[in-house]
Amino acid sequence: MSRFWSPLVQSLVPYVPGEQPKDRPFLKLNTNENPHGPSPRALEAIRAATGDGLRLYPDPVAGDLRAAVADRFGLTPAHVFAGNGSDEVLAHAFNAFFGGGGAVLFADVTYSFYPTYCRLYGLAHRLIPLSEDFSCDVTMYRGPCAGIVIANPNAPTGIPLNLMAIEAVLRANPDVVVIVDEAYVDFGAETAASLIPAHDNLLVIHTFSKSRSLAGLRVGLALGQPHLIEGLVRVKDSFNSYPLGRLALAGALAAWQDRDWFDSTRKQVMADRDAMASGLRAQGFEVLPSAANFLLASHHRLRAEAILAALRERGILVRHFRQDRIRNWLRISVGTTTECAALLAATAEILR
Amino acid sequence: MSRFWSPLVQSLVPYVPGEQPKDRPFLKLNTNENPHGPSPRALEAIRAATGDGLRLYPDPVAGDLRAAVADRFGLTPAHVFAGNGSDEVLAHAFNAFFGGGGAVLFADVTYSFYPTYCRLYGLAHRLIPLSEDFSCDVTMYRGPCAGIVIANPNAPTGIPLNLMAIEAVLRANPDVVVIVDEAYVDFGAETAASLIPAHDNLLVIHTFSKSRSLAGLRVGLALGQPHLIEGLVRVKDSFNSYPLGRLALAGALAAWQDRDWFDSTRKQVMADRDAMASGLRAQGFEVLPSAANFLLASHHRLRAEAILAALRERGILVRHFRQDRIRNWLRISVGTTTECAALLAATAEILR
Repeated sequence: MSRFWSPLVQSLVPYVPGEQPKDRPFLKLNTNENPHGPSPRALEAIRAATGDGLRLYPDPVAGDLRAAVADRFGLTPAHVFAGNGSDEVLAHAFNAFFGGGGAVLFADVTYSFYPTYCRLYGLAHRLIPLSEDFSCDVTMYRGPCAGIVIANPNAPTGIPLNLMAIEAVLRANPDVVVIVDEAYVDFGAETAASLIPAHDNLLVIHTFSKSRSLAGLRVGLALGQPHLIEGLVRVKDSFNSYPLGRLALAGALAAWQDRDWFDSTRKQVMADRDAMASGLRAQGFEVLPSAANFLLASHHRLRAEAILAALRERGILVRHFRQDRIRNWLRISVGTTTECAALLAATAEILR
Repeated sequence: MSRFWSPLVQSLVPYVPGEQPKDRPFLKLNTNENPHGPSPRALEAIRAATGDGLRLYPDPVAGDLRAAVADRFGLTPAHVFAGNGSDEVLAHAFNAFFGGGGAVLFADVTYSFYPTYCRLYGLAHRLIPLSEDFSCDVTMYRGPCAGIVIANPNAPTGIPLNLMAIEAVLRANPDVVVIVDEAYVDFGAETAASLIPAHDNLLVIHTFSKSRSLAGLRVGLALGQPHLIEGLVRVKDSFNSYPLGRLALAGALAAWQDRDWFDSTRKQVMADRDAMASGLRAQGFEVLPSAANFLLASHHRLRAEAILAALRERGILVRHFRQDRIRNWLRISVGTTTECAALLAATAEILR
């Protein structure tokens, strides 16, 4: 605490990201990174941009990237916003759209950055409980509020919603912005981007950190009608004119265009996820049905924290959340086929 | 305007960066970029980091970069904050330290992003007029306020303050944070980093976009006592855990370590600046004494906007600000020796 801190800063409870160990080699199944590398075309584009041109500022409007993204969804560049990772894009969206009064609504078990953004921008929030089985009853999202955020698939449960459910939320809340955070959508859920033309209150968030394997590059997107994108641009241009550097812009564009790499790697992740889920269930784990690149799993015989510690002893990191409803669950990122087998071998040994 | 915008967003007046033309090759003397490329060691480090490792999140605390920076100034890593360009670092600093009530003080002619940050965070501000000759009378920075920002050297004037003047501001305002924005300090002014151990209210801002020729990479720094850095960290970790990607971290570290490249290129810029200033003065321009990589110049015979347009016709971009006191001035970035000569040839022709 410092006497120079703003009252706001004194009240903040920052988000705590998953561990990035530097001291010894761990099998990292704790931060939902992609086990496969980025598109070779993305690496080639980054290498090509690594030169004297870095002395120049990047394109502040990320024109080429936005055009390529828009094209994929049958939208226009005015429907696309790009930022320094989807965390920055989400932060700007909370600031741009949720300040109208009332509480922001999101699930009681979801991405733990959402309440952090609310504190940063002085917004109230109200938790909407997931059902006993961690599914989402979307009829609970109604009534006066400042806005709604839904992660689809949800994290850390991995459970997806279908587009009819998303559309029901949009229809029931026509006067507030509904953010659909699709960080994990490419691993088995359906994007709501197709609903954008019909819904002026929909903002869809994507990231390059998961299905495009570029967590180290920091690129995120928002998709929505131009009046929403313009709101994000106003916040961005009051904060940092150039959120994306030249290497991020070049790498993201090439990764976006390499559809084959994207499809083959995400399909491999889905296959390995399903095999790992079967393996865990065979060992007595309860595993939630996941459409993401991770599994949420719990064992009736051993406490999650004991399994966490035993895995760490064996050089494997997974993620545990100190939150009541999921205190006995572990979130396990999907690795390569070999890594998933190593995880299963370790849990088998721990449970023996 | 959209009915979904927060009241805040409706009130914003975003910063407008200098033009980044894409359609034709201009001689860009409009955004104070470095005419020399980045350190070859920085490019090599970026290439080495361009691989499968990009699938992983970067180090959220930028440990290696902060250690290298701290070492140079005889400080510790706890004295250093790193962000996505100095614009982001400044934004977080305004948010972290200037919310205590009262107005933020800065010069009437200075970096035009400062009032924009104030609007973004709902902060009042009060302009402190520069003297007739655009010098800064630091005795005017006293009395109750929320905080103080001084660009040293100032932009767009280029005029530096000495450390005695900075120290006078720190002493006269012991209860608020004084930000010294040293974006251009390496071109001839003296950094206030040496004052940090004795002044708990000093925050020094640096950027890699100017003297380190990495505007396209987006890296900025704050230096200050650990209690101030911790305030910035709390804001950052409530906004975006990973503001710097792996390529930015690798490139910035190597650029910081390449002292020879840094020294030789900045000395070349200073020599070309002084030669260009002499050349402009010989053509009848009034040129402010600059310790930065740009000159602010005005001609008694031709209006600044006419010169701006005539230069643009000749393929040369410089920067003009629509602000009363500097409406008849142009900010001209220092290019290579050849580019400075081209600028002088063009102004000579325009004035003929």
